[in-house]
Amino acid sequence: MINEKMVNLGKQPSVIRELFEFGKRRKEEIGEENVFDFSLGNPSVPAPLVVKKELINLLEKEDPTFLHGYTSAMGDEKAREAIVTYINSKYHCKEKKELVYMTCGAAASLTIALKALCNQDDEVIVFAPFFPEYRVFIENSGGKIVVCGFDKNTFEPDMIELEKLINEKTKLLIINSPNNPSGVIYSKECIEKIASLLRSKQKEYNKEIYLLADEPYRELVYNQEEVPYITKYYDNSLVAYSFSKSLSLPGERIGYLLVGNKCFQANSVFYAICGAGRSLGYVCAPSLFQHLIPSVIGKTSNIDDYKENLKELSSLLEEIGYEVVHPQGAFYLFVKALEEDDNEFSKRAREFNLLLVPSTSFGVKGYVRIAYCVSLKQIRNSYNAFKELYMSYL
Amino acid sequence: MINEKMVNLGKQPSVIRELFEFGKRRKEEIGEENVFDFSLGNPSVPAPLVVKKELINLLEKEDPTFLHGYTSAMGDEKAREAIVTYINSKYHCKEKKELVYMTCGAAASLTIALKALCNQDDEVIVFAPFFPEYRVFIENSGGKIVVCGFDKNTFEPDMIELEKLINEKTKLLIINSPNNPSGVIYSKECIEKIASLLRSKQKEYNKEIYLLADEPYRELVYNQEEVPYITKYYDNSLVAYSFSKSLSLPGERIGYLLVGNKCFQANSVFYAICGAGRSLGYVCAPSLFQHLIPSVIGKTSNIDDYKENLKELSSLLEEIGYEVVHPQGAFYLFVKALEEDDNEFSKRAREFNLLLVPSTSFGVKGYVRIAYCVSLKQIRNSYNAFKELYMSYL
Repeated sequence: MINEKMVNLGKQPSVIRELFEFGKRRKEEIGEENVFDFSLGNPSVPAPLVVKKELINLLEKEDPTFLHGYTSAMGDEKAREAIVTYINSKYHCKEKKELVYMTCGAAASLTIALKALCNQDDEVIVFAPFFPEYRVFIENSGGKIVVCGFDKNTFEPDMIELEKLINEKTKLLIINSPNNPSGVIYSKECIEKIASLLRSKQKEYNKEIYLLADEPYRELVYNQEEVPYITKYYDNSLVAYSFSKSLSLPGERIGYLLVGNKCFQANSVFYAICGAGRSLGYVCAPSLFQHLIPSVIGKTSNIDDYKENLKELSSLLEEIGYEVVHPQGAFYLFVKALEEDDNEFSKRAREFNLLLVPSTSFGVKGYVRIAYCVSLKQIRNSYNAFKELYMSYL
Repeated sequence: MINEKMVNLGKQPSVIRELFEFGKRRKEEIGEENVFDFSLGNPSVPAPLVVKKELINLLEKEDPTFLHGYTSAMGDEKAREAIVTYINSKYHCKEKKELVYMTCGAAASLTIALKALCNQDDEVIVFAPFFPEYRVFIENSGGKIVVCGFDKNTFEPDMIELEKLINEKTKLLIINSPNNPSGVIYSKECIEKIASLLRSKQKEYNKEIYLLADEPYRELVYNQEEVPYITKYYDNSLVAYSFSKSLSLPGERIGYLLVGNKCFQANSVFYAICGAGRSLGYVCAPSLFQHLIPSVIGKTSNIDDYKENLKELSSLLEEIGYEVVHPQGAFYLFVKALEEDDNEFSKRAREFNLLLVPSTSFGVKGYVRIAYCVSLKQIRNSYNAFKELYMSYL
């Protein structure tokens, strides 16, 4: 009678959430320090001090009717300007503030972009391994998810499969680099190949095909790797960004959606974004945090803490004998399961109080995701549990 | 190629927004003090001081990873508990915190409730005059809007028409009291009549029909009028609330959706709400403002300022000769246009630099809406313009 699809979606939390809830119960039973919860991508490093300082500064100095008042639906002018000034200077491009739409975080950026671009039954290509909520967001827009496989060595898209998957119904591709869950950064060569293929497919089908870069982890890179800025490689590009991970503000829901200035009929695409935001009930992004942006743009939490976690965790796992995908960014480690069925492996890990997300939920078999945005202490203390889990397979 | 419906929705801002943008340009031309902008429902009274104090307190004392971290999708436990404790004590009911879902404001509450309840082509009844975005939100859910007329004396629903409009496709009714744009509060008797009709229609069609109370203006009442709490009158009730108007925080996007505890299969309805929130991209409501709720629940901005505005504006208009609908709440005055076509009347008002929203956008002909959430000075200074507009019709 009511919307059954929504009931089921609400009843069946994502595998990640389910694992997290299990962890909560288990911690109550045996104590927090005895559960090694690697389930959630919730930043463990606090927001930089400048966030607190500037928020208090705004609260002390600004007129509250301005500070907490509606901004225009596309966002506060100064926030939008600060964002493009930063991007243009850092990535040497020419984005326009008129094409930046402030959002309530990356999930909102994605649902809005999908609703703006897709008509019923349009196809949206995602690359395994991929963030499981993509499926939910694509379905909400009326689109259909199409999953493309990956190169087992690089964890980059399988270009041969991709070429076969693009057809006259393809509306857009979503890429996510640095990637959740693999931590892999798509190389410049990889992006160039995708762009070149899309250009030829646009000609073949005489239509626009969009490329949406979902990049909440852009700043979380550990060895000065370059994360190619997508609008420089492909004209019909959109960028979905969130300050959740870079500034450790995941609960505040602040991000943006940028339409590349060379996008075909960029203004129409931007109008569609405004329409989609309105239709989904997003009146404006939270105003206090919009007003914060100009003074914190380009700053990040202390990323070195994650780097240290990564180093410690990788060497600990490799010492035991696990096979890991060496990540270049984000705060996830993708580790080969010790049996074919990653769900079974994740279940057995629970017996050792290790909460590891099975990779099937990311569209890939045979791995688990370890979110290492946790305390260094937790990583060190988990050694025995990982060791015992490993031994149980010998 | 992209979603044309969204392009058009983005291109054609609401009449209210269009008027507001005209005002902005006009202010640049002739000076802000010479434009009498009554277009927007943007609170003019600042947030109470306790908001600033408690926000700074939270920023100073709480761990930032908690303060800015994800809450659960349904919201922070303490915020949800504070809300039901307040409601149960004030309205003598027995709502449950487990049935409160924190949202990014009233628009989000509405889009989420509609998506949770509606299947394709379900009918949603709204009562003229109504908030124009209802149409957009209902269409997003796949539902169809059905407009019911009103009693010309009381501005309450026309019960005879309502009875005819309810059929086997009716999924829910939305009521909005205190009403935007009329300021009218639906009386207890009115609510009882709607509830009784719905109960008999539920039996007739052997199905659930839901009643959704959209009430961002609940606390903005001027003469101790009672705003009936809907869950006490009808079991299948939901309440969409926002702190935007009561606490003057419209930009912060904080509100909630409550499922009445006597609602049929309330848990399933709540699951559907969780599913709909997830599907629309609402990960959680902004966390800092969720954590603020327990210390500000039940408090409001200085409502007396609006009361004074209302008194001044009504007597000024009536002195000139205008016919006004005497409001009991909210911060809008509904005034009879001086010609049949309210769009033409609004256009002529522009010539006198008066920005009044034509009532056609609210589904009613022959009125304009005056948002009196402005400075008292603006109201006083607008006297001559209102007088000249009136004279131009003699």
